[in-house]
Parts: sequence; structure tokens; C-alpha cells
Amino acid sequence: MKQDVYIFGPAFSSFVRSVMLCCEEKGIAYRHGMSPKCQNIRFKSPEHLAMHPYGKVPALLHNDKVLFETSTICRYLDACFEGPALQPNGILERAQVDERCAEISIYIDQALIRDLVLEFAFPKGPEGQVREERVEQTLPAARSALRRLTTLLDEHPFICGQNYTIADALLTPILDYVERLPIGKELVGTGRLQGYLNEMRARPSGLKVLNIS
Amino acid sequence: MKQDVYIFGPAFSSFVRSVMLCCEEKGIAYRHGMSPKCQNIRFKSPEHLAMHPYGKVPALLHNDKVLFETSTICRYLDACFEGPALQPNGILERAQVDERCAEISIYIDQALIRDLVLEFAFPKGPEGQVREERVEQTLPAARSALRRLTTLLDEHPFICGQNYTIADALLTPILDYVERLPIGKELVGTGRLQGYLNEMRARPSGLKVLNIS
Repeated sequence: MKQDVYIFGPAFSSFVRSVMLCCEEKGIAYRHGMSPKCQNIRFKSPEHLAMHPYGKVPALLHNDKVLFETSTICRYLDACFEGPALQPNGILERAQVDERCAEISIYIDQALIRDLVLEFAFPKGPEGQVREERVEQTLPAARSALRRLTTLLDEHPFICGQNYTIADALLTPILDYVERLPIGKELVGTGRLQGYLNEMRARPSGLKVLNIS
Repeated sequence: MKQDVYIFGPAFSSFVRSVMLCCEEKGIAYRHGMSPKCQNIRFKSPEHLAMHPYGKVPALLHNDKVLFETSTICRYLDACFEGPALQPNGILERAQVDERCAEISIYIDQALIRDLVLEFAFPKGPEGQVREERVEQTLPAARSALRRLTTLLDEHPFICGQNYTIADALLTPILDYVERLPIGKELVGTGRLQGYLNEMRARPSGLKVLNIS
């Protein structure tokens, strides 16, 4: 059990899915969920806060060590384990993946998941309805984020160029959720971004992780 | 000029100061400000957005390449240049510095700079006064952040242990600003955290970067 990898967090979390995708891409055996040791751990409970001092997910448990923050966890797994490298070797190229990870985790996630997808996932309007006016307010930033991603993708197969990187693992679950929204197909369009999402969904990692319900 | 390092952003920005501290600690020659090429660049202007697509600072200009996001920039500079390493070599130890960088940039910065220091720096109350009730609201989270930092410091000389790392460069300008607030000395206290801040201020890097007005 020394090499036991446990991803703490619910599988619907896009960031939990990002860590799972990294494990799948590298061929790392892992378990995931809210019960690292038989007992279920409640959100924000002392046991959760001991793993993530700000009560977020995911946290990684590995060799009796705990790490939090998705990009940190993914870089750690990439450094720790054999399997395809999820970061380039070149200093500048690696920094560009690092920068893209920060951009996706901060700005893209804010515009697409926190402000948009969560409004549909946990509607807060009267009688549990989606607040349409709130959705309207978020659309300009969402469209801007999607335009930025289209620009970044350019003609590459992956978001940072010719190879699958941690940045793809961060982006795929976000885009997947956006496209499944009632307005998702219109938002993502039928161009390069939809093509990229189709390719990410068709990979063994995508087939496994994105279809967990 | 091939190795010219330019840190784009105003020197009062704590994140700009973090990049400057990394340069000082590694002995990297650099310039900084809002004029990478003679002409002053306005915030959120097309020239700024070409360097940082979200209109934030800092951005790093190096060898005709541009990078944004402070931790990314610091890791890049550490990998690119000779001088004292600002990250450990061990995989887990490096991940812990990475995690601390994320924690300071996201949660600690929010509680101490965005919610607290900026209320004093750019007061929005009537007649340009500090909104005391807003300050009161932010104090529990600020105190909690400072307690967390005290716990992390433990008995180490630096925030991640025995050596100066990027995490210290991220933390020092934040703590320095907090302690200069009217309520700063009471907040920081007279214990380990104040001792740490004194030591960081007394280093050649601190003496140079933290006293720019």
C-alpha cells in the first residue's frame, strides 16, 4: 500500500477529474472519493480541513503525505511516476504549460465553471430554477474565455502544442461540462474547440473519467 | 540585450515585488516598471493585454518571450538562471513549495491584500475614508491567515523550511504591507511571524525591494 494513490474529492468536481485524467494518462493506479480509509469524510469536517486547510477539493494522499491544489498535485504525480511525461523538458516550454495551468485554473475556471456551469448545476432561483438573468450576465466572460481557448488551440492537437499536458487535463473536464449545458453547443460552436473536445472525450482517459455519473 | 529581464508592473504591487525579490536573491539583473520599451504602457491598454490577456501584473519579458502569473514567472527564472536555487530538488519537497506558492497566491493574498490592505490603500468610504465596518468584516479571515502562517513557519527560518524559496518571495511583500497598516503591529503580533518578517526585511533583497516608494 506504500504507493497507494488516493484522490480525495467527489468525482463530479472538474478539478478532481483533472487529477484522475493525469493518473489515467500516466497509467497510475488510483482510488478516489470521500473515504480514504473506510469512513466517509464530510465536507469541511476537521478530517477534511486536515487534508485541505481551506476545505476545497481535491487533495492527494500518497505515501502518507497530503498535497492540495490541482496543478501542484498534477506536477507532483508527473514527477513521481513513470509513464508519458505530462510536461515538456525545455525550460520555456515547461513554463508555458505552467502558465496555461494557472490561466485555466484561475480565469477560465472562474468564467466557465464557477460563474456559468454552477448556476445550472445548483440553481438558486425561485423554486430551484436557473436564474436566467444571472446566466445572461456571465455569457460575455464565458464567450471571451472560449474565444481565448480557440486562439490558444490554434492548429495544435493539444492546448500547449503537440503533446498532451497537465493543461489538457485541467481544461477537458471544464469544456466537457460547458458543452453539456442547454446552451453548451451554441457556446462551444462547431469549430476547433468542439473538435478538440471530441478528441479529448474519445481518448481512453476521457472515456473513463468524463462519463462517471 | 538577449538576456534582458523586464518585470512589467508597478513596484507597489506585492506580486511585482515577489518577482523582484526572486531576481535579487538569485542575482539576476533586471529592470522593472510600466515602460519596457521607452513608452509608458497604460493599464488594460492593448499593449498591456498583449502581455497579460487578463490585464493583471506582473508579466515577465525575457528574450522576446512574455510570461504571466507570478509563481510561473518565479519558477521560470529559477530554472533559467544560475544563482541560489529557490526550489528544492526532492520531488515531494518541491511539490510542498509549489503548494505553498499556490496557497499564498490564492488564499493568503485574498485574505490579507485584496480584502484588507487594499481597503486601506484605496479607501472607498465617504470622503475617501477607510470603511471601518468593511475592515472589521475582513479581520477574522486575516487573523486566520496569520495563524496559519505562524503554524507553517513553526521553528524554521523560512516558510518552507531551512532555505529561502519562491514561497518566501511571495509571502514577504504581503506580510510587509500588512504590518505597516495602522492595525498591522497588533495583527502580526510580536512572535515568530514578526521575527520572520524582520529577518526577511533585513536581507539585502528585502532592504532593496521593500523600501521602494
